[in-house]
Amino acid sequence: MTKRVKGRMVMPKVLVSEVGPRDGLQSITAIMPTPAKLAWIDALAAAGLQEIEVGSFVPAKVLPQLADTAEVVAHARQIPGLTVAVLVPNARGAQAAIEAGAHKITLPLSVSETHSLANLRRTHAQVIEEARTIAEMIRALPAERRPHFEGSLSTVFGCTLEGPIPDAQIARLAGALMEAGCDEVGLSDTTGYADPASVKRLIALVRGVVGEAGLTGIHLHNTRGLGLANALAALDAGLTTLDASQAGLGGCPFAPGATGNIVTEDLVFMLESMGFDTGVSLPKLIEARAILAAALPGEALYGYVPLAGVPLRWKEAA
Amino acid sequence: MTKRVKGRMVMPKVLVSEVGPRDGLQSITAIMPTPAKLAWIDALAAAGLQEIEVGSFVPAKVLPQLADTAEVVAHARQIPGLTVAVLVPNARGAQAAIEAGAHKITLPLSVSETHSLANLRRTHAQVIEEARTIAEMIRALPAERRPHFEGSLSTVFGCTLEGPIPDAQIARLAGALMEAGCDEVGLSDTTGYADPASVKRLIALVRGVVGEAGLTGIHLHNTRGLGLANALAALDAGLTTLDASQAGLGGCPFAPGATGNIVTEDLVFMLESMGFDTGVSLPKLIEARAILAAALPGEALYGYVPLAGVPLRWKEAA
Repeated sequence: MTKRVKGRMVMPKVLVSEVGPRDGLQSITAIMPTPAKLAWIDALAAAGLQEIEVGSFVPAKVLPQLADTAEVVAHARQIPGLTVAVLVPNARGAQAAIEAGAHKITLPLSVSETHSLANLRRTHAQVIEEARTIAEMIRALPAERRPHFEGSLSTVFGCTLEGPIPDAQIARLAGALMEAGCDEVGLSDTTGYADPASVKRLIALVRGVVGEAGLTGIHLHNTRGLGLANALAALDAGLTTLDASQAGLGGCPFAPGATGNIVTEDLVFMLESMGFDTGVSLPKLIEARAILAAALPGEALYGYVPLAGVPLRWKEAA
Repeated sequence: MTKRVKGRMVMPKVLVSEVGPRDGLQSITAIMPTPAKLAWIDALAAAGLQEIEVGSFVPAKVLPQLADTAEVVAHARQIPGLTVAVLVPNARGAQAAIEAGAHKITLPLSVSETHSLANLRRTHAQVIEEARTIAEMIRALPAERRPHFEGSLSTVFGCTLEGPIPDAQIARLAGALMEAGCDEVGLSDTTGYADPASVKRLIALVRGVVGEAGLTGIHLHNTRGLGLANALAALDAGLTTLDASQAGLGGCPFAPGATGNIVTEDLVFMLESMGFDTGVSLPKLIEARAILAAALPGEALYGYVPLAGVPLRWKEAA
């Protein structure tokens, strides 16, 4: 972390990728009205977040909370400088994402085949085949319309059904996703099983297969309170994109007991305190919680910094 | 962190120093009955914790919650292998601690003089003088009865009244405590202002003055959610003793808004997951919460791992 000491001229950049509108909203039973979603996304972008996962192209009957994803993408695309990301379960979803104009498409592949069958109802071979189809779809587009395509290795730190997943299986699947045409792979701690040592170990393992450019981001949960420690380990290992969710909304509905993304507000506070340049205004980010509180009455909103405030004379010296 | 990879033959040791019976109980209004305290300390020690800060020798009218500290020390001393630690505000408290037979005495020195006056009602010079008197008292004892004497640099990551404290002042006070006769100094994030970068920076600063053996431990709060990330940074910088409080009980009653120690259960989970040897049984540690819950009805108990449980087949491979 040699470049991250406070007071240097060059502040290293970290991309905080906000996943609340997708991972957060899909995990709760309440359905956020579309106008509130759009206002929330506007506020998040106005706070300086440069990438937002705004929804998921899944059948409305599976996730009615995200049925308006096409409309949300169309709106978010109008925000200057914002990378509009979406999750897709398969090639059909990717087709819809491309039609809507998403800038980034993420296809999850659960490295636990048991979890893959439970979550996506597909074997590994079937998911890899979907990835290949999506990559072909993207290649057929004019260059300026091609979205960035990420294959996300979910349950990579262990599965609630299978326990730890063998390294060889993880390495093989990371390689298969790249071979199928993904631009990069990501690591996802779907179950909240990660610890700082396993984060570093798996980054080294997967980068050994896909190279540094093939793995830049990680999606961490705070299920066991280690979210920010794991984020620190990921930064230390060289990753530059960290997923987080405003107010910690979300988690994985198919992994029992595993709830809670890392809280964007607390992550931004940690990064900015350390001297990283996130481009995010913490006061504006905290203001955006009001939209969430109003649109989702009764929903638990997490985060320490929104309650405790920032330290006296925070960052004045920097 | 080269020695910390899972599966190695040698598991590096970390001392988790439990401060709940002191820092936890002093921060809440309820007074835990002495028999419950003793049962709690017994359970914590039975779970494998090797150092417990069991109380503070302050006047009973200031902290009635800890008025039974002498009795608690007398009991805890009977537990084989346990280091019985206490906090003292001054030489008078140290005298009582020595008479009770404490193994370790910690004298806080707030590096913010404003906070020192508010908390201990003493200037820096006065606290250093107390340290000198305590060290003389200890030297006058037979060698086998001498407690370990730590000077704790509190508000070292910043003060709610003064903001950041100049490095030169911190370095000077660390040196003065050692010169006065402390065996070592500790860092204390009284206000929850620390971040992983400032943790590493201050460890380097203070070790530059007192040497490696002169700084081995840190007391972190979780006020802004960074507790475990800061603990990870401290480990990475070479510290080997981490304070924590069962259920996150406690904080600093004289630092407004700054509440919440790091949770022992979550810290032990992180350390053991990473391959550190804490000597603590996580199931037994979680069992000890029941005593706390019964003795302090209505008190908020924190911690993620007690709710989420450990990962499926946790540590089976190690």
